[in-house]
Amino acid sequence: MNFIEKLNHAWRASDSLLCVGLDPDVTRFPQPLHNLDRKQAILEFNKAIIDATHDLVCAYKPQIAYFAAESAEAQLAQTIAYINAHYPHIPVILDSKRGDIGSTAAMYAAEAFERYGADALTVNPYLGTDSVTPFTAHAERGVVLLCRTSNPGAADFQDLDVGGMPLYQKVAQTVARHWNTHGNCMLVVGATWPEQMAAIRKIAGDIPFLVPGVGAQGGDVEALVKAGQRPDGLGLVINSSRAVLYASQRDDFAAAARQVALETRALINRYRARP
Amino acid sequence: MNFIEKLNHAWRASDSLLCVGLDPDVTRFPQPLHNLDRKQAILEFNKAIIDATHDLVCAYKPQIAYFAAESAEAQLAQTIAYINAHYPHIPVILDSKRGDIGSTAAMYAAEAFERYGADALTVNPYLGTDSVTPFTAHAERGVVLLCRTSNPGAADFQDLDVGGMPLYQKVAQTVARHWNTHGNCMLVVGATWPEQMAAIRKIAGDIPFLVPGVGAQGGDVEALVKAGQRPDGLGLVINSSRAVLYASQRDDFAAAARQVALETRALINRYRARP
Repeated sequence: MNFIEKLNHAWRASDSLLCVGLDPDVTRFPQPLHNLDRKQAILEFNKAIIDATHDLVCAYKPQIAYFAAESAEAQLAQTIAYINAHYPHIPVILDSKRGDIGSTAAMYAAEAFERYGADALTVNPYLGTDSVTPFTAHAERGVVLLCRTSNPGAADFQDLDVGGMPLYQKVAQTVARHWNTHGNCMLVVGATWPEQMAAIRKIAGDIPFLVPGVGAQGGDVEALVKAGQRPDGLGLVINSSRAVLYASQRDDFAAAARQVALETRALINRYRARP
Repeated sequence: MNFIEKLNHAWRASDSLLCVGLDPDVTRFPQPLHNLDRKQAILEFNKAIIDATHDLVCAYKPQIAYFAAESAEAQLAQTIAYINAHYPHIPVILDSKRGDIGSTAAMYAAEAFERYGADALTVNPYLGTDSVTPFTAHAERGVVLLCRTSNPGAADFQDLDVGGMPLYQKVAQTVARHWNTHGNCMLVVGATWPEQMAAIRKIAGDIPFLVPGVGAQGGDVEALVKAGQRPDGLGLVINSSRAVLYASQRDDFAAAARQVALETRALINRYRARP
């Protein structure tokens, strides 16, 4: 089963478009983990969050920077291996925003797909076609291209007009027309920009969107679901990290994370098309 | 001493604009290292190259992807620690091309500057201002923004006209006008594009360029030095990786690397202004 098939299956099995982002920030961990070694705490925290939310999500998205800052590559590998062993139907998107010349991109593909066993990774499109093909050539894996990101600075370059359309739409068009030949691409479209999301949906057809920015970043769920979903009520992988992960600082942190995930799934589902 | 001061000193002390890129590809290692454990081979290879070239370079540029693909983060840390211990006057630019939202960028800054002790790192500008300030806020470290990269696909987006200038020039202008407030920015300008380099020099003033693409990628040294150097004959960090690293497959690999580095420094110096 390739990445997109796995995602399609996970959307339906969980009745959820919610993705939980695994951004383990040791300084925000709940009290019960404070007496563990930092690296051990990262792994135990992730496992508790995964066990508490696995039936409510269509994907997990570990953010590699949080592991790298703590020298916790082994715990990243163990976290993904834990998902693959216990919940093998849930796709894992490694959020690494890689982007480099071809020979280097091949090394990053080995990192994400072989070393970590991720189903997909995020990639920055700035370097163009030959920086992306070493990833998309893995036809059974997913490649999630940054298009319109969720942060305030997204407009600085992504909104610049490049001959009748903003750059982010040109990226979407390039992915749809040229880079998605194996049908394994997705686009990052921030939850904070529903108007732009609607425009990208028109360009991108059925290509799924990874949507960061719900929760701590303040994205409007109703607006984004209406703007981004496909006619089949699918097509979105809506990420929430901090609002789920740090829902409680106490013993009940996993239960509290589950409760936020439940509520977020329900909120998303309220606006989904049900054909 | 901040990064730019360190670079200025290294240019003069080595009489060199050459940077050796540390891209340890185990499959291309010389014969004498074949019987070592892969990770041990990476560290020994790097140390041999560094010892053989330290007086000929203005910087080293380890490419993190080659270490990450081999689970060799410890060897990356040890390589940089080796340079810092034995050749502390030589700046280390970590080539990681990071780029993410602010909270995540802060984690990548911790990775590069605290964990690895790099003097500078490369950053992708696609996410805009708030993705860059967590790096530039470290005023004593360097931030090297991708501008016009050396690969064939660079033209796909970087050359698009954005209101009277190509995107890569808009990036250069943004760096020069807004992101270089601490005077700690550089720009990546591929050796393969001397015409574009001359245009960027006009926009960027004194900002140093990191110039990949000499050697294996085929950049023309005369054209790029004439296009990119400042009136003081400095301002360029010209990277060569594969041509130096894999100059010989035999026992003499370190001496062969030194010979290529010597020749490349001399070739570069032939076209430098000597005010």
